[in-house]
Amino acid sequence: MTRPVLVLNGPNLGRLGSREPEVYGATSYAGLVETCTKLGAELGFEVEVRETNDEAEMIRWLHEAADGRVPVVINPGAFTHYSYAMRDAAAQRTAPLIEVHISNPHAREEFRHTSVLSAVASGVIAGFGIGSYRLALRALAEEGSS
Amino acid sequence: MTRPVLVLNGPNLGRLGSREPEVYGATSYAGLVETCTKLGAELGFEVEVRETNDEAEMIRWLHEAADGRVPVVINPGAFTHYSYAMRDAAAQRTAPLIEVHISNPHAREEFRHTSVLSAVASGVIAGFGIGSYRLALRALAEEGSS
Amino acid sequence: MTRPVLVLNGPNLGRLGSREPEVYGATSYAGLVETCTKLGAELGFEVEVRETNDEAEMIRWLHEAADGRVPVVINPGAFTHYSYAMRDAAAQRTAPLIEVHISNPHAREEFRHTSVLSAVASGVIAGFGIGSYRLALRALAEEGSS
Amino acid sequence: MTRPVLVLNGPNLGRLGSREPEVYGATSYAGLVETCTKLGAELGFEVEVRETNDEAEMIRWLHEAADGRVPVVINPGAFTHYSYAMRDAAAQRTAPLIEVHISNPHAREEFRHTSVLSAVASGVIAGFGIGSYRLALRALAEEGSS
Amino acid sequence: MTRPVLVLNGPNLGRLGSREPEVYGATSYAGLVETCTKLGAELGFEVEVRETNDEAEMIRWLHEAADGRVPVVINPGAFTHYSYAMRDAAAQRTAPLIEVHISNPHAREEFRHTSVLSAVASGVIAGFGIGSYRLALRALAEEGSS
Amino acid sequence: MTRPVLVLNGPNLGRLGSREPEVYGATSYAGLVETCTKLGAELGFEVEVRETNDEAEMIRWLHEAADGRVPVVINPGAFTHYSYAMRDAAAQRTAPLIEVHISNPHAREEFRHTSVLSAVASGVIAGFGIGSYRLALRALAEEGSS
Amino acid sequence: MTRPVLVLNGPNLGRLGSREPEVYGATSYAGLVETCTKLGAELGFEVEVRETNDEAEMIRWLHEAADGRVPVVINPGAFTHYSYAMRDAAAQRTAPLIEVHISNPHAREEFRHTSVLSAVASGVIAGFGIGSYRLALRALAEEGSS
Amino acid sequence: MTRPVLVLNGPNLGRLGSREPEVYGATSYAGLVETCTKLGAELGFEVEVRETNDEAEMIRWLHEAADGRVPVVINPGAFTHYSYAMRDAAAQRTAPLIEVHISNPHAREEFRHTSVLSAVASGVIAGFGIGSYRLALRALAEEGSS
Amino acid sequence: MTRPVLVLNGPNLGRLGSREPEVYGATSYAGLVETCTKLGAELGFEVEVRETNDEAEMIRWLHEAADGRVPVVINPGAFTHYSYAMRDAAAQRTAPLIEVHISNPHAREEFRHTSVLSAVASGVIAGFGIGSYRLALRALAEEGSS
Amino acid sequence: MTRPVLVLNGPNLGRLGSREPEVYGATSYAGLVETCTKLGAELGFEVEVRETNDEAEMIRWLHEAADGRVPVVINPGAFTHYSYAMRDAAAQRTAPLIEVHISNPHAREEFRHTSVLSAVASGVIAGFGIGSYRLALRALAEEGSS
Amino acid sequence: MTRPVLVLNGPNLGRLGSREPEVYGATSYAGLVETCTKLGAELGFEVEVRETNDEAEMIRWLHEAADGRVPVVINPGAFTHYSYAMRDAAAQRTAPLIEVHISNPHAREEFRHTSVLSAVASGVIAGFGIGSYRLALRALAEEGSS
Amino acid sequence: MTRPVLVLNGPNLGRLGSREPEVYGATSYAGLVETCTKLGAELGFEVEVRETNDEAEMIRWLHEAADGRVPVVINPGAFTHYSYAMRDAAAQRTAPLIEVHISNPHAREEFRHTSVLSAVASGVIAGFGIGSYRLALRALAEEGSS
Repeated sequence: MTRPVLVLNGPNLGRLGSREPEVYGATSYAGLVETCTKLGAELGFEVEVRETNDEAEMIRWLHEAADGRVPVVINPGAFTHYSYAMRDAAAQRTAPLIEVHISNPHAREEFRHTSVLSAVASGVIAGFGIGSYRLALRALAEEGSS
Repeated sequence: MTRPVLVLNGPNLGRLGSREPEVYGATSYAGLVETCTKLGAELGFEVEVRETNDEAEMIRWLHEAADGRVPVVINPGAFTHYSYAMRDAAAQRTAPLIEVHISNPHAREEFRHTSVLSAVASGVIAGFGIGSYRLALRALAEEGSS
Repeated sequence: MTRPVLVLNGPNLGRLGSREPEVYGATSYAGLVETCTKLGAELGFEVEVRETNDEAEMIRWLHEAADGRVPVVINPGAFTHYSYAMRDAAAQRTAPLIEVHISNPHAREEFRHTSVLSAVASGVIAGFGIGSYRLALRALAEEGSS
Repeated sequence: MTRPVLVLNGPNLGRLGSREPEVYGATSYAGLVETCTKLGAELGFEVEVRETNDEAEMIRWLHEAADGRVPVVINPGAFTHYSYAMRDAAAQRTAPLIEVHISNPHAREEFRHTSVLSAVASGVIAGFGIGSYRLALRALAEEGSS
Repeated sequence: MTRPVLVLNGPNLGRLGSREPEVYGATSYAGLVETCTKLGAELGFEVEVRETNDEAEMIRWLHEAADGRVPVVINPGAFTHYSYAMRDAAAQRTAPLIEVHISNPHAREEFRHTSVLSAVASGVIAGFGIGSYRLALRALAEEGSS
Repeated sequence: MTRPVLVLNGPNLGRLGSREPEVYGATSYAGLVETCTKLGAELGFEVEVRETNDEAEMIRWLHEAADGRVPVVINPGAFTHYSYAMRDAAAQRTAPLIEVHISNPHAREEFRHTSVLSAVASGVIAGFGIGSYRLALRALAEEGSS
Repeated sequence: MTRPVLVLNGPNLGRLGSREPEVYGATSYAGLVETCTKLGAELGFEVEVRETNDEAEMIRWLHEAADGRVPVVINPGAFTHYSYAMRDAAAQRTAPLIEVHISNPHAREEFRHTSVLSAVASGVIAGFGIGSYRLALRALAEEGSS
Repeated sequence: MTRPVLVLNGPNLGRLGSREPEVYGATSYAGLVETCTKLGAELGFEVEVRETNDEAEMIRWLHEAADGRVPVVINPGAFTHYSYAMRDAAAQRTAPLIEVHISNPHAREEFRHTSVLSAVASGVIAGFGIGSYRLALRALAEEGSS
Repeated sequence: MTRPVLVLNGPNLGRLGSREPEVYGATSYAGLVETCTKLGAELGFEVEVRETNDEAEMIRWLHEAADGRVPVVINPGAFTHYSYAMRDAAAQRTAPLIEVHISNPHAREEFRHTSVLSAVASGVIAGFGIGSYRLALRALAEEGSS
Repeated sequence: MTRPVLVLNGPNLGRLGSREPEVYGATSYAGLVETCTKLGAELGFEVEVRETNDEAEMIRWLHEAADGRVPVVINPGAFTHYSYAMRDAAAQRTAPLIEVHISNPHAREEFRHTSVLSAVASGVIAGFGIGSYRLALRALAEEGSS
Repeated sequence: MTRPVLVLNGPNLGRLGSREPEVYGATSYAGLVETCTKLGAELGFEVEVRETNDEAEMIRWLHEAADGRVPVVINPGAFTHYSYAMRDAAAQRTAPLIEVHISNPHAREEFRHTSVLSAVASGVIAGFGIGSYRLALRALAEEGSS
Repeated sequence: MTRPVLVLNGPNLGRLGSREPEVYGATSYAGLVETCTKLGAELGFEVEVRETNDEAEMIRWLHEAADGRVPVVINPGAFTHYSYAMRDAAAQRTAPLIEVHISNPHAREEFRHTSVLSAVASGVIAGFGIGSYRLALRALAEEGSS
């Protein structure tokens, strides 16, 4: 019997593949969904991948996960830098919540703001491209991060 | 045929298990070595785990890795906060170099300094206890981070 | 004849009672609604209590209040820290607008950002739990804050 | 049987009514005393209103309140910005202590310093003119702030 | 044959004319729409003017413009100060994108934050009232900003 | 009958065309003069274009404009970052004064200082190459900025 | 008929002459009193020179001056750096209030804090030793500073 | 023949024993007086222990010590953080002046301000509870700090 | 026999009387010259009043004063905020050099920068309108500032 | 039976007596060793004094002390300012650890960094020359700091 | 055949020898000219040494050097701290440009501003007195810095 | 008879030639040694070139130089940014000590920290590649820096 996992993506991530391939790699959003779903299945997870540009929707999903005790892999996108509302929702988590980034934000100059989310996340994985998601799913499968 | 991987640990990490278990978990350093070696073998790596309190030794190991094109998993310990010398050595890397932290430094108040190493690392994994090392080895095995 | 009052709650406040009771007290959101409605009735107000995770909805409600010259009691939740859009909407107020917080944000370490809303509010009440709302309604009833 | 309450006013507040009416309103200090005493009586309190320009006297009053478990309503005036000595005395409180301000300090440009007192207060009420005191007394009467 | 242009307005701008005329001038939002449409027609543009209080809707419009290679004139309103999500969407632009402000933000004290959008805009025009939009349309018509 | 307009250029701008064409475009200073004069004539202006490396001369020109109630288009060049003397002279303006920049300074990393001039300018136009001047002249012609 | 003037000295100034003569000069406090009284008499003032280490006493004197519309020459001593209570009292002034310093505080390294008083003073005179007081009295006599 | 020593305590220290025993230890102020007097006698000192909440009184005591060339042990309490007036008085010392703190202020989060007194003290001892005073007396007895 | 004194005025001060009379008063530059010359003559000085918008000219005048051991009264105008070159020239002074300001810069919001000149001036006088110059001349006459 | 105590000295302290005697006094390192050993013997301690320029050696000594439950007196020298690795080792202490400084670092301008060690030390003693070590040993003997 | 070299000196440097010999050494400006000319001749350079207090003149000289592909040795004097106009001119260099300082600015407290010029210089030499110029000429002769 | 000179290189400099040639040039460490030795011999120096990754070794070498009154040319590498221990050792110098950098650190973005060493160095030379060392040796030979 599989366990549910939510993979939540913040603003602009649904356009993956159409934007700055030298930073984000060539994988499309469809490829991201497939990668997560497939690896999830191997690991015994029923992975649902969602994306939204809407802070309120992201908050609702985090509430849904908290209510259902569902683990979360979240790429907050640009919400990383200011959405304290998303953070408060994430802080209510009742299961592991792993923050992922496709590129290594510390290696990019353009953002100075650090993540407002990390303080409430179980762990952080950054810099492995789509692999960041894969590692997060493995972390959920093997490590039992809390 | 196995590929070599260096797992390098900075100051005080050799005393793992004797220090603040509520932060670092109960695993001892010996347990860390065994975990890395064993998982490494499963993944086709010949993992060598080292630890040092000595910045110069850490730099030499990073030079050794650069010369041999050996991937590195590095937990810089307190060097994270100031060792620009370690960072310059790491910047010479010729293979993936993954920075790991046992706990999530963003969730701890005591350090305000961010990592001086992250800017030159392939990726960063933090907050999964000993699992951070395991994920890093998996990243080397599967993802081919660069 | 009763006067209308809007009590507006920002993100995550609809989940009151399910979150960090040691900080926010044990009252549920339903209890908050009842408290405000009942005290409002005693004071001659027709109180409507709303909550939203959506910044745009909050802005529309503030426009609605401004158009109808309706007094507002607002707990901005995490919008406190960054929503300049909410603030611009609040600045259009045509009746008293009182900012309330359940706990005393100055006593909590986790947020360093001050409120972006206070500069345009009539007054601020913080630290009395659900009582912050009650005091705000009394302020509207008795004091005629402007 | 009435309960005692101390209303303590910091420097220059005894001159209320003679200073910047566009900021502080037209009420005189005598009016403030009368308002507090009268409302206090209605609420079952024996309110004593004091004012001082002397930090040491303010500290003694706070000690007196702490020793007698007397609730305090305090307008720290300019001590707000630097008197850590007043704050340490307030931190010894054994009953609710509510910080009040006549105007909303966040709406005034002249002070950038935040209150050094708020971190140890039960709650903060600001921006309602003399009404800030009235709300504080009501908070003591009804809400049982702690 | 006319070319399409999108004129996008951020939060509260739909209420133009009802708010602080001493800052924003007397023109209503309807006047803004008419001005842009009419001048656009003269210049050979099919101008569509939109306004939203919703960050997610603004992001979708920017995606739409990027997909259609449509030039954009954008007044980000209060999003100027924090919406990195809007900025990431704008950074995907495939045609000129001009940031406009009705008043000169450098001459107003209330905001200290600079624009998070400017770094990805083709150009910036501020301080000309409704004329800022007119100049932006002229810039698109004559100058071929990129 | 034509109206006079002064187009004033700060230090190093006389060398336009000989410097960093990837930033400033290929237009020479002579081309800038011709563009401004020609468009000015079309718009009914007698445009005089001047350039100086000398802060005192710039100040005299601004005094001259103030005395003659002549509109000014000014590209302050590097004076942007520190010449409070130029700014004080500009603040005496008796007619519109528009600050222009060839490139978008917010998109360049090398300067962190913001403009000391903007606070006293009618408006700001940046990022359109030589087109910034053209838009400024149009703003003078059509919009009657003040 | 002479006009009254108050010369008010803050903490430690009563010990003038016993402290750091290389900074403050050789004049004793008695000499300061005599100098001010004598020059005051020449200028038609009845000068009263006072000194206190007590912030509350300084505040009372400022209230006294405000009530009597008496001009004030004030050397705030170390209160310069933090006494917002003194400043609020000074802000109530109904006659000129001139801030003096014996030495030039800008030339001394030890204090970084600027004066909290200057913003409400008529003028500031610093660096002339006892002469700073003499100049302040002359300013009151001749210039009618306000 | 015994030498006099003054032990001076700042605001709230007279209430030692009634406040936060987990921070300050269980010793009462009476115990502190007895400890200092008794050890002083052993060391050949006539120790007088005083406490005040009044900055002006503290300044007078420091003047008294300076005039009598009496060594001082001073626990400035909250004056540590802002009383530049106390500091100026201490700077006039003619004998050793040792700053003591019961707890280690560097280990407490609540104060970020460093001591304004340390720059003029002979030495600083912090973190030994009542023992900090004992060590200071020993320092006076044996070491001849200056 | 009279002693020479130089009164040096920085940028824009030659236009005194034509600019912001609510800040600078109604006196014209001609009035300033006459006031200084006349009072100087009374005091036994041959006062020469100069003004320049040119930093290099100001520097030459300061060199001239240093070579001739001539006292200087200087209103640096906007050079106050950035001209380290003027400051270096002033630091070579061989006679008193008094910095004057017509208004009290601490009371104006528009400049945050402090004076770069004060550290090398004998004294500073600010806030007395044209009287600031008169006081400076008196200081030279009577006090012998150095 | 004597108890062991480790006195650990950081970089350059072995050269005591050859460096800046006006700051550090005239005592040589040999004198320091003798002083500590002799006083230690009187107090019932077997004191071992060590010095190193090597961060890794300092860390090993701190581990050794932690393993043996040996009290430590440590003068971190320049490590004070940056060695978070030393600090992490010190944080593992199982017996009192007292930080000493020969001079009072707050009275010296050259270092702005505060100690990274103090947060984990039992107490801090600074400013008594070699006497700082003597006081630390007395603290260990008498006070039982923890 | 000799190559031309320009040695350019900023404000106040023409007065070398008349100012603060303890900082700048005893060499006069004439000595500086002679030293540079003579060493230049030995090295095959036709050295022309110039000095100016005038930013605009300095800019013209830098343009002249850029046009003639002439190497520059420049001591910017106080322009170091703010002249972005000089810097923009220097950035146009077509030959090596070496920034020199007579004293080591890092060892002087009085300036906190770093050089705005260094970012565009070939190299920087500071602290060797007149020798800084000599080393710069040697660098041009031998090293071919670019 | 030759004079000894020590050329000391900090961490990672021994790998010169294997790292980032676009920044450091193509010269290998062996080439650096040869260049220094050869030029030293011409200048009458017996140059010894050393390199270490070990802070303690660097400190010992600086002590050795101080004891032997040997001039030092030091490239601190990454120690530039944090090694206060190296700096304290360098401050003990008894002969000239020249800090060199191969590239111009002001022109590189990656480090914001300034050198902690410069304040105690005789002079600084940066930006001339290997030529920085050559110039430093010439400075020792000709200029007699101190």
